[in-house]
Amino acid sequence: MTSTPTADPTPDVTTLVVGVLGGTGPQGKGLAYRLAAAGQQVLVGSRDASRAESAAAELNALRAGAGAEIGGGDNATVAAKADIVIVAVPWEGHGALLESLRDHLAGKIVVDCVNPLGFDKQGAYALAVAEGSAAQQAAALLPDSRVTAAFHHISAVLLLDPEVPQIDTDILVLGEDRGATDLVAALAGRIPGMRGIYAGRLRNAHQVEALTANLISVNRRYKAHAGVRVTDV
Amino acid sequence: MTSTPTADPTPDVTTLVVGVLGGTGPQGKGLAYRLAAAGQQVLVGSRDASRAESAAAELNALRAGAGAEIGGGDNATVAAKADIVIVAVPWEGHGALLESLRDHLAGKIVVDCVNPLGFDKQGAYALAVAEGSAAQQAAALLPDSRVTAAFHHISAVLLLDPEVPQIDTDILVLGEDRGATDLVAALAGRIPGMRGIYAGRLRNAHQVEALTANLISVNRRYKAHAGVRVTDV
Repeated sequence: MTSTPTADPTPDVTTLVVGVLGGTGPQGKGLAYRLAAAGQQVLVGSRDASRAESAAAELNALRAGAGAEIGGGDNATVAAKADIVIVAVPWEGHGALLESLRDHLAGKIVVDCVNPLGFDKQGAYALAVAEGSAAQQAAALLPDSRVTAAFHHISAVLLLDPEVPQIDTDILVLGEDRGATDLVAALAGRIPGMRGIYAGRLRNAHQVEALTANLISVNRRYKAHAGVRVTDV
Repeated sequence: MTSTPTADPTPDVTTLVVGVLGGTGPQGKGLAYRLAAAGQQVLVGSRDASRAESAAAELNALRAGAGAEIGGGDNATVAAKADIVIVAVPWEGHGALLESLRDHLAGKIVVDCVNPLGFDKQGAYALAVAEGSAAQQAAALLPDSRVTAAFHHISAVLLLDPEVPQIDTDILVLGEDRGATDLVAALAGRIPGMRGIYAGRLRNAHQVEALTANLISVNRRYKAHAGVRVTDV
């Protein structure tokens, strides 16, 4: 029940360069670390190049020689150098950053993993987004990019813990472009324990982003770092 | 990683009567069949009592002597007799039915499993609901009931297939009332393979309902009857 889906041959992503915008936040750092540890070439981006370089150095120490060297740079440089660009910035700065990088991201595969959430004393809840979801906002702002959505539900704590050898979870991958979603699913599959599962078009991204609020409730109740597996695939 | 959560002792639900409104549709029939096969007392309801009785007879034949006898009646009678009432009607009739049963449902635990979805040539998508979600609509219409939401993601095909001995999936249970969500989680846990997992308040029900659209995309792509497991719980 948890074998690799075989609907299509898995594309080879091993030579692609992955950029992580917001690569100095916990989610971005965690993804950069896991992908690099799996051998992927990764560049972490930040508004400030020196902060990105510090994060890269920290992650290179964490991987302790495993996998590939992580580089760092400002967001625009990283966007321009990468083949696949993961957007892991806070929701507050999401639209402005993507708009500023439109030209650098043209022709690239963009992977939005941003969850627009609010928090109050009752916990987390989904914010209303004019475009429907963070991913749809990205698609609207980046008409020349191949926008996908993925990596919403993985715990940054687990990602960044070198004592955790694998993370048994599925990565729901959404998008309009079959080639792009197949590549992103294959990228997810490089991280031990993870599978990439195609889960629909961007018009159905809102609920995938918002489900993170439910997982936060699960984490509180069960003292867990909850993720999602899709059954029967 | 798939053991029963032990955050709280599991309440005993074995003596509770479960009513299923819309018990003649595939989801309602499937849940009635599985719960009765597990030994739960179940009553299926329909607008028309004779249709409910026919469905009950069909399901009793399907369970072939296993578990408990299923009864049938009109929705109001079933609502009045049951302790826990599962709402499995089509979204189109959801609000009107619940409004008409307000008095019969007072004091009961209501379990909404309705997914407000639209369909077009690109597949399924989430409908906008004025109250936020079907579950929140139910809570607004039934101020004297203990409204929860659960059982959104299970395949009626699997539920109704007697050759399928167990369904390995988690049931996300939402609600404001801890006692009610604990009981519904325990009820879900009676069906072989299933676990009930608390997954937040009703304000976070929309995305759980809407995720069904994503699972429909998964089913199309992978020829599956997809469900969800929560990892690390």
